[in-house]
Amino acid sequence: MDKILRIDVGADGGPKAVEQELGDYAGLGGRAMTSAVVAKEVPPLCHPLGEDNKLVIAPGMLSGSAASMSGRISVGCKSPLTGGIKEANSGGQGAQVLARLGYAAIILEGKPADDTLYKVFINKDGVTIEPDNSLKMLGNYDLIDKMKAAYGDKACFISIGQAGEMKMSAATVAFTDMEQRPTRHAGRGGVGAVMGSKGIKVIILDDTGMAMRKPKDPEKFKAANKEFVAGLKKHPVTGEGLPAFGTNVLTNVLNEAGGYPTKNFSTGQFAGAVKISGETLAETETARGGLATHGCHRGCVIRCSGIYNDKDGNFLTKQPEYETVWAHGGNCGIDDLDAIAMLDRLDDDFGLDTIEMGATIAVAMEAGIAKFGDAQAAINLVKEVGKGTPLGRILGNGAQVAGKVFGVERVPVVKGQAMPAYDPRAVQGIGVTYATTTMGADHTAGYAVTANILGVGGNVDPLKPEGQIELSRNLQIATAAIDATGMCLFIAFAILDQPETFQALLDVINGFHGLNLTGDDVTELGKSILKNERDFNMRAGFTSKHDRLPEYFKKEKLAPHDALFSVTDEELDEVFNW
Amino acid sequence: MDKILRIDVGADGGPKAVEQELGDYAGLGGRAMTSAVVAKEVPPLCHPLGEDNKLVIAPGMLSGSAASMSGRISVGCKSPLTGGIKEANSGGQGAQVLARLGYAAIILEGKPADDTLYKVFINKDGVTIEPDNSLKMLGNYDLIDKMKAAYGDKACFISIGQAGEMKMSAATVAFTDMEQRPTRHAGRGGVGAVMGSKGIKVIILDDTGMAMRKPKDPEKFKAANKEFVAGLKKHPVTGEGLPAFGTNVLTNVLNEAGGYPTKNFSTGQFAGAVKISGETLAETETARGGLATHGCHRGCVIRCSGIYNDKDGNFLTKQPEYETVWAHGGNCGIDDLDAIAMLDRLDDDFGLDTIEMGATIAVAMEAGIAKFGDAQAAINLVKEVGKGTPLGRILGNGAQVAGKVFGVERVPVVKGQAMPAYDPRAVQGIGVTYATTTMGADHTAGYAVTANILGVGGNVDPLKPEGQIELSRNLQIATAAIDATGMCLFIAFAILDQPETFQALLDVINGFHGLNLTGDDVTELGKSILKNERDFNMRAGFTSKHDRLPEYFKKEKLAPHDALFSVTDEELDEVFNW
Repeated sequence: MDKILRIDVGADGGPKAVEQELGDYAGLGGRAMTSAVVAKEVPPLCHPLGEDNKLVIAPGMLSGSAASMSGRISVGCKSPLTGGIKEANSGGQGAQVLARLGYAAIILEGKPADDTLYKVFINKDGVTIEPDNSLKMLGNYDLIDKMKAAYGDKACFISIGQAGEMKMSAATVAFTDMEQRPTRHAGRGGVGAVMGSKGIKVIILDDTGMAMRKPKDPEKFKAANKEFVAGLKKHPVTGEGLPAFGTNVLTNVLNEAGGYPTKNFSTGQFAGAVKISGETLAETETARGGLATHGCHRGCVIRCSGIYNDKDGNFLTKQPEYETVWAHGGNCGIDDLDAIAMLDRLDDDFGLDTIEMGATIAVAMEAGIAKFGDAQAAINLVKEVGKGTPLGRILGNGAQVAGKVFGVERVPVVKGQAMPAYDPRAVQGIGVTYATTTMGADHTAGYAVTANILGVGGNVDPLKPEGQIELSRNLQIATAAIDATGMCLFIAFAILDQPETFQALLDVINGFHGLNLTGDDVTELGKSILKNERDFNMRAGFTSKHDRLPEYFKKEKLAPHDALFSVTDEELDEVFNW
Repeated sequence: MDKILRIDVGADGGPKAVEQELGDYAGLGGRAMTSAVVAKEVPPLCHPLGEDNKLVIAPGMLSGSAASMSGRISVGCKSPLTGGIKEANSGGQGAQVLARLGYAAIILEGKPADDTLYKVFINKDGVTIEPDNSLKMLGNYDLIDKMKAAYGDKACFISIGQAGEMKMSAATVAFTDMEQRPTRHAGRGGVGAVMGSKGIKVIILDDTGMAMRKPKDPEKFKAANKEFVAGLKKHPVTGEGLPAFGTNVLTNVLNEAGGYPTKNFSTGQFAGAVKISGETLAETETARGGLATHGCHRGCVIRCSGIYNDKDGNFLTKQPEYETVWAHGGNCGIDDLDAIAMLDRLDDDFGLDTIEMGATIAVAMEAGIAKFGDAQAAINLVKEVGKGTPLGRILGNGAQVAGKVFGVERVPVVKGQAMPAYDPRAVQGIGVTYATTTMGADHTAGYAVTANILGVGGNVDPLKPEGQIELSRNLQIATAAIDATGMCLFIAFAILDQPETFQALLDVINGFHGLNLTGDDVTELGKSILKNERDFNMRAGFTSKHDRLPEYFKKEKLAPHDALFSVTDEELDEVFNW
């Protein structure tokens, strides 16, 4: 990871790759890298689909090493969805393989001369870029089948589906998993549209012949990693809940807490929750010969993923995440797991953010385009997106655009990005994160569900404003740092509750890089990332007025608690006042 | 004009009207009134289609009097198109009739309980509000035919078409002209969507039995008005050019200047310009038994309007304005006057802003939805809007939404509102206005075409940055003041060049109101309006970063001058630094 690969897609004669020294970016990984490059190199007022935007793909500081859980990769750019800076994060094999190939980042930049579609092949011998218009408008699954046939079963793929080619604001960048399936996505903010605007359909990574990255202090690293894994195994969330039921373990939890946004955020509990819960999901997967526990990347020890087979026992999709099950399920009044799994499959195939799509379909349902609860209608709507019909193009550009086009007032977005699966009226801490993160509404940016609902990292009453600012602030800082390491965010459960596991993480980093980072250093790293991002957004025209939830969350009471979002604007403005 | 009519559409049992004293709003008219009410009463972060937004309809300070040219009316709200404050201005009979009925403003506020559609009838005896769902989804022409049958040939109508009912961001509020046709529109910024969100389809005004408003100093007023009219008559623009050819006299002028935005702002001259010029238009109108000169409201002495008949001599539409002919003509590569007149008719009928629609269709053409120059395709696209198909809903929400939905980069908007008929690279002064006005790209907010192209009010080289800031600043201030008086903005040509005509205007105001305003007072009035508007926008989250043209105007050269927009960001930030 001592070089950067820049691909100028506007070069004479087609895209051209150049390797560069790290320079100013030395030592950065993941979100620290993507946000640094975007903040420094992208003019904040440029068009997100134009020549001045850049797509930055960066493995974490620990990716490609033997560190457990280090397989996350960051994709950054100016977001077509929010107009602000974006880091979207994915599992899958991309981080490990790219890091082993020695790249701290791939940067796609410039503007293609025409609409030729290209593929980029990277292995130990270097980089080859070829036009291949036969790939046009292929879904991720067909694309990857074709790529596997050409590049073999060792390769890992980074790709876009039809949505990215059509430059939709809900388009993702897909990363293949350990089974070479395009099931892992840098989902949020339309990063796939930016890849599409650069004319790159797929990046093929083959690390054959490349070694695992070596720690500076092998003994310390190995011991720390062992301690770190032990910490993950002993925490009830990372050691029990997530492996057994996946992230969808949260359906029953949030529903019981009255914070499960149902039918476009109109109530906080869903009558059909049990039918689509993690417990039911795991049972269904096991009964059909799928897998209820599984890792999405090499080195995962939590194994919260799974395999969802259809009724005939054939692979349909990976285990849908909690947020996906919610978005396409309760938020649309749908309680049919097979339909939700099909929607997940379609989203992965077209390359669409499941959260944005579910939120958008619910807005369309509120507009009367389909009925709440109509699973077949929801499937048909997502198929429209893949076909690129006018209706599909509306939906593929997210909830805010759909709300505007259909004249809907109740549109749950912040900075143009749809809220995920936690109602901010019943989980006020996550509301603070939605409002204030640089990313637009994003649960992963500061997952206050921990202390609000799960009793992890302390307890903060989810229905009251007290303590939420500090909670969200601290989590946003910690998250930014974790997103720089390449570590899966789910390690946070254990490190928040277990000081020795946090110390083990520090030792993993220090052992690998030969550093002596303390907890304070990690905090400073997180702050420096957020500062970069806030600065970019300010230069793009964002103000405190954009750090707000839509007004109706302050006016429309949420059952069963009759809760309103009660954190004041003045308090919200204190989040970054550290 | 000593009272305000507030209609709470959310009152128990349906919309309820209350008359109020003027209070803080005493003495205000037109844009001064609408912007004062919006700035004071509308929460800047509210949803434009929600209960907290208000639609304010206000005649000018001189409307309803015998002052010539005083028939303009302002419609204000938080704009669904821009998200900022909006004043859209219209001719027609509304201003005169509403003022004679004694109302300084109608304010629609609150949120309707259901989707019942209402009509409001106002005459000397008061206000009646009735539900009438038989009006649903009527176009303005059918609606007004029905209303004329019920309310007679003295009434004046303020209405929305299908676009307003569907809450589209390009929806207008229509005002009938002297022939009771819905041809005059408060066009920009989606004011019709706000009226639609309030559930009011039509406001019927009948001033039978009401007297013309009386001046405080009749002698002074009468003499000043005579002098004022003489000044308008003797100026070449208001006395010759506009009466003979209407606003479309500008087609040849702008085309020759290389500032005529052609095919979605891709070049500055249009080969078909002569075929759609004001000269050809007037000739066509006269030959078919229409009218090449005509006033849009009682008291007009410029008479820049006209009547456009079809090939069989039947009324098709009013004489399309220059900006309409450009938007649906050269900007879409269309050189067919009959097609352009049909598009004007359809826009008026559905209640759509012709500028926004033409700009949007050009963006759709750039996206490949239709071919540049295909008039029938353009007509079909506007019909889709009227039908509310998904494609129509995209287009009816304006150029920015269409650009986003279709993934187009070259979208000529500022603050979400489409640029009108003057390319800012070849007419840099108007570029300064587009960038900095509170309204989003709007030529009427500071019409620097005067000194840049027409040699009115001095001469400022249109291709250079020098002098443009001061020019735009002074025009923006003067325009805000004129928009408060109820005077047609076209008086500006004469008052800019002829000090005695400006003095006559002051004397008209002073004679009517018994005041002693000086030129400095008018400047202060203009500044105070802009200050109110800027303050609202700042509270809505706008910053200097929103006072910018899209980046491509600084990078993509415009033929024939190979011009780029060269006013710097730092200079733009000086416009309001007075």
